Amino acid sequence: MKIINLISDMQKESLEARQANKTIGFVPTMGFLHEGHATLIERARKENDIVILSIFVNPLQFGPNEDFDAYPRDIERDERIARELGVDYLFYPTIQEMYKDDRTTLITVQKRVDVLCGKKRPGHFDGVATVVMKLFQITMPDKAYFGMKDAQQVAVIEGLISDYHLTVNLVRVNTIREEDGLAKSSRNVYLSPLERSVAPAIYQALKMGKQRLEQGDSILQTKELVESYITEKTGSEIDYVEIYSYPGLKEIQKPEDGDGLILAVAAKFSKARLIDNIVFSYTKGEN
Amino acid sequence: MKIINLISDMQKESLEARQANKTIGFVPTMGFLHEGHATLIERARKENDIVILSIFVNPLQFGPNEDFDAYPRDIERDERIARELGVDYLFYPTIQEMYKDDRTTLITVQKRVDVLCGKKRPGHFDGVATVVMKLFQITMPDKAYFGMKDAQQVAVIEGLISDYHLTVNLVRVNTIREEDGLAKSSRNVYLSPLERSVAPAIYQALKMGKQRLEQGDSILQTKELVESYITEKTGSEIDYVEIYSYPGLKEIQKPEDGDGLILAVAAKFSKARLIDNIVFSYTKGEN
Repeated sequence: MKIINLISDMQKESLEARQANKTIGFVPTMGFLHEGHATLIERARKENDIVILSIFVNPLQFGPNEDFDAYPRDIERDERIARELGVDYLFYPTIQEMYKDDRTTLITVQKRVDVLCGKKRPGHFDGVATVVMKLFQITMPDKAYFGMKDAQQVAVIEGLISDYHLTVNLVRVNTIREEDGLAKSSRNVYLSPLERSVAPAIYQALKMGKQRLEQGDSILQTKELVESYITEKTGSEIDYVEIYSYPGLKEIQKPEDGDGLILAVAAKFSKARLIDNIVFSYTKGEN
Repeated sequence: MKIINLISDMQKESLEARQANKTIGFVPTMGFLHEGHATLIERARKENDIVILSIFVNPLQFGPNEDFDAYPRDIERDERIARELGVDYLFYPTIQEMYKDDRTTLITVQKRVDVLCGKKRPGHFDGVATVVMKLFQITMPDKAYFGMKDAQQVAVIEGLISDYHLTVNLVRVNTIREEDGLAKSSRNVYLSPLERSVAPAIYQALKMGKQRLEQGDSILQTKELVESYITEKTGSEIDYVEIYSYPGLKEIQKPEDGDGLILAVAAKFSKARLIDNIVFSYTKGEN
């Protein structure tokens, strides 16, 4: 595995791979790798000749009250994991390398952002879109791997790819779950033993919501059902339960056969806020 | 010459050229080709295996009070000119093709825009940057050709290329001038015979200003000299005379050896507003 710090070095390697007709799989991360990242990397490893992993804690996507400095970092451990998973290139630039003093532009995301978690994080997705555009130009991937745990981020990046006609294919990688269905998250460790035992009700509620919606319940009925189920089963405080079109993230009145939909939840436990979602193509009468 | 209307077709051709190790020269235009465009195309023809010319009147860079609809168009004449100049691909998409219904982002330009002509055209360069990023991703050029007549546009695109680490090389093509020094422009036909005879004083003033600045005059003295010279010789109304760093377009107190500078003018005649500039590396005591 080569560790690369400079943009020009990375571009040289990417260009050479491209010219040799090798396919490039790219996994962008902020480091502190966990099982979710491992799944993305393994998938990239299977599907491409060359795998590039980037580790860059992007200051541009942190708000003034979000703790950029405290974001966890452990590059030595990340290096070891990346090596074990068969990564070819670890791209690990400094902030100075990525944002010289003279940034003149920003990619502002005007749709798909004022809903779900984006609602409370103004500017967050501008930072994401801007850094991802940079990373795509640097690593020149055929395929880029993103986890559906952050489905809104996937929707924003799909918009970016469409807007600028980028030739990269985004691969939506399904959320990895514990055996009981709880979405894997580094925040799960903050759950009390009791909370941990009831938290799988979130995913149960999502599956149930999908089923009821496809059996003909209204959007409103479904959201209420999901909310009350999670509240009753877990005692957590619901931040939101939403149903939107996906990836457009627009409000819908009544879903029709074949519509892409997202049913998404954020729920606050005593020390952790958990998010989860299911994205599916609406099929009336399914199940 | 192939005429291409679809983004996917253009990308296919660009990719094939790239894979065959052919170099691509790209000239983006809004059509209604004139001698300035011809110079860009000729230069691209000399320096590349393949020349792509795009013609697209970009609605996104027109303000609400700017006349997008009345912008002159003559695609048949443009086709003929492009063919004669040896263009390989004329990329001529519709608005619908370039901006589907679902644009989600905009590239906002945050520096280099609130000066010179950009001052009065809020959002103009956002539209330029956004379409140029799209066109670069579609045509995948090694070199892209821009005229220095619109030096501010060049500065903005150079910022875009730097921000996103694009591998395209921007080629700054010098302003084409009449024999008497007047910058060529389709607006020159709006000058009265008398105005036309005195208009070369603009370029004379710019050259004189550069000389005086390099001989030690202050920024302020130089601007005043250029302004009064043009006013006296042409009777036109000065819109601005400015000196900035280039391509940064920042104010400067006192230039130092090697600084990139622009000295730029806009002057209103009875029926035409003319702009001109010189960009140079400051050399103390030059001339």
